[in-house]
Amino acid sequence: MRSTSRAETFPAHTPAASQIFTTVLSHGPLTRLEAARRAGLSAAAVTKAVRPLLAAGYLAEDADGDARPALGRPANLVRVDGGRALFIGVKVTGDEVIAVLTDLCCRIRLARRLPVTDHGAKAVLTSVAELTHELRTEAEDFGAPVLGLGIAVSGDVDRAQGTVRYSPFLDWRDVALADLAAMTTGLPVVVDNDVRALTVAEQWFGAGVGLSDFAVVTVGAGIGCGLVIHGRLVAGAHGVAGEIGHVAIDPAGPLCHCGNRGCVEAIAGDAAIVTRMREVTGRQVTDAAQAVALAHEGVPGAREVYASAGEAIGRGIATVANLFGPERVIISGEGLAAYDLFAEQILDSFAAAAFGSAARCDVQTRPLPFEEWARGAAATAIQSFITSSPTPTGKG
Amino acid sequence: MRSTSRAETFPAHTPAASQIFTTVLSHGPLTRLEAARRAGLSAAAVTKAVRPLLAAGYLAEDADGDARPALGRPANLVRVDGGRALFIGVKVTGDEVIAVLTDLCCRIRLARRLPVTDHGAKAVLTSVAELTHELRTEAEDFGAPVLGLGIAVSGDVDRAQGTVRYSPFLDWRDVALADLAAMTTGLPVVVDNDVRALTVAEQWFGAGVGLSDFAVVTVGAGIGCGLVIHGRLVAGAHGVAGEIGHVAIDPAGPLCHCGNRGCVEAIAGDAAIVTRMREVTGRQVTDAAQAVALAHEGVPGAREVYASAGEAIGRGIATVANLFGPERVIISGEGLAAYDLFAEQILDSFAAAAFGSAARCDVQTRPLPFEEWARGAAATAIQSFITSSPTPTGKG
Repeated sequence: MRSTSRAETFPAHTPAASQIFTTVLSHGPLTRLEAARRAGLSAAAVTKAVRPLLAAGYLAEDADGDARPALGRPANLVRVDGGRALFIGVKVTGDEVIAVLTDLCCRIRLARRLPVTDHGAKAVLTSVAELTHELRTEAEDFGAPVLGLGIAVSGDVDRAQGTVRYSPFLDWRDVALADLAAMTTGLPVVVDNDVRALTVAEQWFGAGVGLSDFAVVTVGAGIGCGLVIHGRLVAGAHGVAGEIGHVAIDPAGPLCHCGNRGCVEAIAGDAAIVTRMREVTGRQVTDAAQAVALAHEGVPGAREVYASAGEAIGRGIATVANLFGPERVIISGEGLAAYDLFAEQILDSFAAAAFGSAARCDVQTRPLPFEEWARGAAATAIQSFITSSPTPTGKG
Repeated sequence: MRSTSRAETFPAHTPAASQIFTTVLSHGPLTRLEAARRAGLSAAAVTKAVRPLLAAGYLAEDADGDARPALGRPANLVRVDGGRALFIGVKVTGDEVIAVLTDLCCRIRLARRLPVTDHGAKAVLTSVAELTHELRTEAEDFGAPVLGLGIAVSGDVDRAQGTVRYSPFLDWRDVALADLAAMTTGLPVVVDNDVRALTVAEQWFGAGVGLSDFAVVTVGAGIGCGLVIHGRLVAGAHGVAGEIGHVAIDPAGPLCHCGNRGCVEAIAGDAAIVTRMREVTGRQVTDAAQAVALAHEGVPGAREVYASAGEAIGRGIATVANLFGPERVIISGEGLAAYDLFAEQILDSFAAAAFGSAARCDVQTRPLPFEEWARGAAATAIQSFITSSPTPTGKG
């Protein structure tokens, strides 16, 4: 988290307090007893943790008519007061900057897009600043402060350092994005890999709520994967994890930009599909939408390109399942626009390559527009806000 | 844990107490302050946790001359009294039953082997009982009780239920091994997959001590993998995890017993190497030792079989590294007897297939005889002992 000004800080000074807040955030209004049970803490610890959060207005406590016991006092429900604070989340793609304003419960209040014409970090940063300014101006109507900005970028991102080490689609190397954006916007900034950000949003607010082990697999320009194991996002000891796109499944397969052959992304990523579609159909194909259209038109060979892509994705998912045994795999990403073209192959090849009871993993799809990815970026900003120490320790 | 009699129980009634004990067990004699720091607990929590453990003799506290501060009282060191309790660990292979007697610190005191001629569960159980009886008789000289038995078997093992669901090498299906062994020996019994058991031993006492994320990859009859992520062993939501042997790397590769083609195990497992060695050399080859000998003799084509095996293992390890980014991968298993024949290929193909900084993962080898695997089984028995509730809740 990078910040240029002294921003409002979260009044939870212990891991237990962050944990209770996160539990209430994910699981909705809860009695203190239920919050304690779910967080694995004592009732006394919960009472201690919620006091400053209630005082500062981040939590609210209401009498719950439905939960009124037959005897004794009615059980109050603790909930997050979503309107207490606002956050901005931004997703940067090769074509657009998508920004959302969310409340503390990560509900989207406003959404804006700007096209990207220049991929340079400076130009993208100008768009991010413009959208942020616009959303903050409109946020004044909501009567709550904007407390953080999350930016999600594909590629190798060092969240702790706030830098984009390498983003192939933007052609960025070692961009200190968090510092730059904090200077431009004056907000505390978190920069994270876009798939990890989406996974955080799914864990806290989506199809991963309550699951200890799950994976988000994104298909589109890249093939990515966010892994939650033992309830926590896997980051990798050296910053690399979830690279399902670079699971190599065929030594005789097409060359990948990573230097290997037969990576899932080299078969099923948008660029690979477009290239293969041109070879197979002899038509001019310049983007994924055109490739999908050819397959839908029934142009000979076009459907087979998607069948191969689906098979590769299914085998990648099976590899994840065989190694980690997640309870659920959530497939998302803009590539789902072609889902009818390869759904069967994904599920069939997953089932064939899954080992034993790993096949019992629940593989489901969630079409999520880019606003949901931007919401994931906002979720990382919320996460950082509620887990950061009130005493700044970073260099920002 | 299955038991037929009321055995001695561990006097730690809270997760914090188990955690402190485990910390002292793994990190050797520690001051209370250091134990608190490493376990992330308060000094008060440590004091509360160690009191009953000191009283029951599981922990001991000694003045430490070296750690004497310049001022004030000398800092006492807390350590596990290894001699306080004994455990038996058994590893079952297709050829032998290997049993060790360990102390509470999982140091091997005695080791015994019996050949397996009949793979049936009944015959193997008789051998396990015989070795257990022998070790318990000899254990009487050590003046400490034997408090548990751990059995490690390859294949799909349900530790919670104590059953071997499927073990291909033993040709077992749904064997309630923990119940059977508890009835035969009268000891509390833990049954676990052998690679997972070895991984527990590495985490607590071996090359994984202090690491939050690491993998143990075993090569030999099978190719297995134990994963520790966020400091905990990955078990898989449906009981399957770490199946690196069934990472499929080549759709044109040899057929695997799992039904797929080109699994790492179908290229680099002992049976695959023996089969391929026969095809390539035209010689009679019946086991891995003969295959190694042919390669060492320089028989044409023999070295290439190992080169392919090494390449497959390296690619499997790279897949593990690309997906979860471990700090270290420890290669072990009886297949290391051939390590000089494929070490270079393992490391080269790992480096080529690792994505970006995932290549910085420390890949190392640890030749561990089967006694170390049996020690892993003893480690699971110790683990179960120190984390089990004093009030039995199982059906045993």
